[in-house]
Amino acid sequence: MKGEQKLVHGFSKKSRDEKLEIVTGHHADSEGALAIFKSFHHSDPKMQKLLEEFSENTVSNFPLPYNICPNVMVDGKTYLVPMVIEESSVVAAAANSTKYWYGRGGFHTEIIDTEKIGQVHFLWKDDKQLLIDRFDELKELLIKDCFDITENMVKRGGGIRDIELRDFSDQEPGLMQLYATFETIDSMGANFINSCLEQFSATFKKWHASKREFRKDGLEVIMCILSNLTPNCRVRVYVETILDQMDNILPGMTGAEFARRFRLGVRVAELDPHRSTTHNKGIMNGVDAVVLATGNDFRAVEACAHAYASHTGRYTSLSHVTIKDNVFRFEAEIPFALGVVGGLTNLHPLVKLSLELLGYPSATELMSIAAAVGLANNFSAVKNLVTVGIQQGHMKMHLLNIMNQLNIPENRKAEVIEYFKDKVVSVSSVRNLAERWHLTGVKE
Amino acid sequence: MKGEQKLVHGFSKKSRDEKLEIVTGHHADSEGALAIFKSFHHSDPKMQKLLEEFSENTVSNFPLPYNICPNVMVDGKTYLVPMVIEESSVVAAAANSTKYWYGRGGFHTEIIDTEKIGQVHFLWKDDKQLLIDRFDELKELLIKDCFDITENMVKRGGGIRDIELRDFSDQEPGLMQLYATFETIDSMGANFINSCLEQFSATFKKWHASKREFRKDGLEVIMCILSNLTPNCRVRVYVETILDQMDNILPGMTGAEFARRFRLGVRVAELDPHRSTTHNKGIMNGVDAVVLATGNDFRAVEACAHAYASHTGRYTSLSHVTIKDNVFRFEAEIPFALGVVGGLTNLHPLVKLSLELLGYPSATELMSIAAAVGLANNFSAVKNLVTVGIQQGHMKMHLLNIMNQLNIPENRKAEVIEYFKDKVVSVSSVRNLAERWHLTGVKE
Repeated sequence: MKGEQKLVHGFSKKSRDEKLEIVTGHHADSEGALAIFKSFHHSDPKMQKLLEEFSENTVSNFPLPYNICPNVMVDGKTYLVPMVIEESSVVAAAANSTKYWYGRGGFHTEIIDTEKIGQVHFLWKDDKQLLIDRFDELKELLIKDCFDITENMVKRGGGIRDIELRDFSDQEPGLMQLYATFETIDSMGANFINSCLEQFSATFKKWHASKREFRKDGLEVIMCILSNLTPNCRVRVYVETILDQMDNILPGMTGAEFARRFRLGVRVAELDPHRSTTHNKGIMNGVDAVVLATGNDFRAVEACAHAYASHTGRYTSLSHVTIKDNVFRFEAEIPFALGVVGGLTNLHPLVKLSLELLGYPSATELMSIAAAVGLANNFSAVKNLVTVGIQQGHMKMHLLNIMNQLNIPENRKAEVIEYFKDKVVSVSSVRNLAERWHLTGVKE
Repeated sequence: MKGEQKLVHGFSKKSRDEKLEIVTGHHADSEGALAIFKSFHHSDPKMQKLLEEFSENTVSNFPLPYNICPNVMVDGKTYLVPMVIEESSVVAAAANSTKYWYGRGGFHTEIIDTEKIGQVHFLWKDDKQLLIDRFDELKELLIKDCFDITENMVKRGGGIRDIELRDFSDQEPGLMQLYATFETIDSMGANFINSCLEQFSATFKKWHASKREFRKDGLEVIMCILSNLTPNCRVRVYVETILDQMDNILPGMTGAEFARRFRLGVRVAELDPHRSTTHNKGIMNGVDAVVLATGNDFRAVEACAHAYASHTGRYTSLSHVTIKDNVFRFEAEIPFALGVVGGLTNLHPLVKLSLELLGYPSATELMSIAAAVGLANNFSAVKNLVTVGIQQGHMKMHLLNIMNQLNIPENRKAEVIEYFKDKVVSVSSVRNLAERWHLTGVKE
């Protein structure tokens, strides 16, 4: 880096290449950095332009591995599922698990509901009872005034479900809200909901101003915004098998013994938030990879799932085990809102191919697939943890990365992999071997 | 799609191109799909191979926009910050906010601590007091036996901080844990911690077996794993200014009035989990974009931040406002564990450039930068919500995407942008204009 940076004026107004010049001006090898950034541009300038219009101040494309998890059987249908994720061993773990359950009936899902939520937050400085008494009249008007916005959605079977008045004035003077629920069918619904809410606000203000019994300054709208916490947009996913069908999941281990240890592994995640967090993170490894590959917003999905995980007052596991009448059942309930139309879904070239590969699923079918992959990852992680330990599987996968980091020559990698077949992989152990075998390449 | 898929055998063993053939065999236009997937491969086969070794079953690279947020002043130092994110308007919002605060002293941060956590979960079927009495002896041995693993980390100033015994046996018979804390300096520490924990487990079993006073079957280790919930690996970030320095943030609005409304916007997120979830999601938009650009694991960061947001027993806002003695202060505390060595940081070509652009920050400096961008995004979002509304800013940004979706010809886009300067953008409104102006391109 060539020293401290000063205020940059009008950066967003500059062309992509002007931006790149400013950026790489801060790199020690400016030309080298420029060449690398440019090497990730798509060879078709039209395609590159499309990609650059998704965001702002875009100077290059950041590649994440686009991977395939085969044999994902969900509700009797089998998919090749695209997963976009950079973490080594996540796809291998998912694939291992989906193949295992393919032979045991696959993943079963049930959409509990698809309710989306939006809120208009406001201060009410007038007589509260007056508002409560008039609320039915207001509600009718709120829905009616949104007709232009909701018309198309209603045709497709969606729209505004209900609007309630909620009261927070015991915690902040005058604070209340219009709490509205929506059905947005195959779209995630953010723009639709926010547009409805802003119309609600306008209607609410107009209606308030038109009523003589209200004080002129009695209403102050604070803000209108959808909620990403959609506990009732939720899918239940489970796998289930009789115990002896799990015999020898580890050579010599009975299905009953495996199930007993697996249940304990999940039980810890139910009891201790320190474990729940990582346990749920393992579910989201799979969910997010599908969310990314299908052009959805993983921050929204993450926020919803983790906030929901604390809805009982203690942050806890999203998945649970039951062992009853000789049957092992592993189940999760995950709330999240996905779309298969709108946003990037119709724009990103690989997202379009992802949706085609999945057979153009509806939003609820995509929820089921993503939840199944999440449970698959969770199964693999807990299985490894309570049997061989996490490091054995994970570090074997990570060995390729470690070898690349140490610049092990391409033609010697197979020997190193062979050597570590029965040994513990760590950066130090690979480095030591590389030194003993004189394999270490030129360090950058 | 060409119909239902059957069990795929040995998918992972096939070459990248064989995998691509299987995948595109399910696309209606197999050759077209293949060409698109291949068009995202890097032109340098060696680079492509490196990217494919990050994960498993990789068939292509999924491009996410690599963007730059200029003018990020953190603790007096100014950065061009790389942000990898696909959501339109996030980078624009961050840039707007960082420029605003650049003129007001920038972002101030404080690392509260950098403590990482790992656990060995076990069942204790023996006399608990015996274990408690002997714990100091065990602890010394646990640390000693990890010497080979911790040696290098200790040289850099890190290592094992402490090990405690924790008891969950009132909730699950015999359930206890070794709760260990670590300092991992500039690495995220997952592999280091998991390796220590697995050694703890081996040492614990050996020690237990060597003691005559313990029952032979008195100890059953369930699993060893790091925790992503690291409340004491946390950064505090804030901006602060006197009220009249915020005059005219919206033309004609005083700083005091803006601050009053802004505080109410954040107050709602403190009180209502439905709002907290989306509010925190807005913080994570910025944090995750930096996390991705620097090769860190956003699932870990998301899980930690959202689980922490519920640590008081109710899921709540990560950021808060105070207005006191004419000073506005906006502050967040965000726990997360980042690394600037290990993982992808030394491997991904754009991650390397990101870290160089940031001046090779330490892990704690990177925490400060990511937290500052998160707070910047949160500031922009709440600012827009309590003033002009979210749709105005966001939909303007989204207009480019909508025009692409509707295939508006390149040479007419400027007119459409001009037309919408003072109008509400929605998919319907753009579609209606396109029809009126006969702009709609050929639909795919």
